[in-house]
Amino acid sequence: MQNVTLRVEGMSCNHCVNAIEKALKELGASGKVDLAAKTVEVSYDENALTLEAIKEAIEDQGYDVV
Amino acid sequence: MQNVTLRVEGMSCNHCVNAIEKALKELGASGKVDLAAKTVEVSYDENALTLEAIKEAIEDQGYDVV
Ligand SMILES: [Cu+2]
Ligand SMILES: [Cu+2]
Repeated sequence: MQNVTLRVEGMSCNHCVNAIEKALKELGASGKVDLAAKTVEVSYDENALTLEAIKEAIEDQGYDVV
Repeated sequence: MQNVTLRVEGMSCNHCVNAIEKALKELGASGKVDLAAKTVEVSYDENALTLEAIKEAIEDQGYDVV
């Protein structure tokens, strides 16, 4: 398992939290958003997923991974 | 048909817009959110719905009608 904390811009409410956590779950990862800190802590299996795919899933929801 | 513009606090993103517009639609009203102006323009049949019910539907989504 790999753990990474991403800085993500544009998350403003609990709907954003849910959208991102759901997208990561669908990808097979798990994420925890901290709205105030503007971060997403992601745990994923590095044999199954790339960090690129994770960033893309977040950006596909309309947010910027910085 | 009655038209009213409500001032609503707490709307921050398009998910909020969708949540409110959907809740109003389910109630039988139609709403248009202006995020920047913090307003919701609502059209409703005053024979079928009260303004109170409309405000409640918005507050039930987690926002404050001020
Ligand atoms: Cu949001
Ligand atoms: Cu929102």
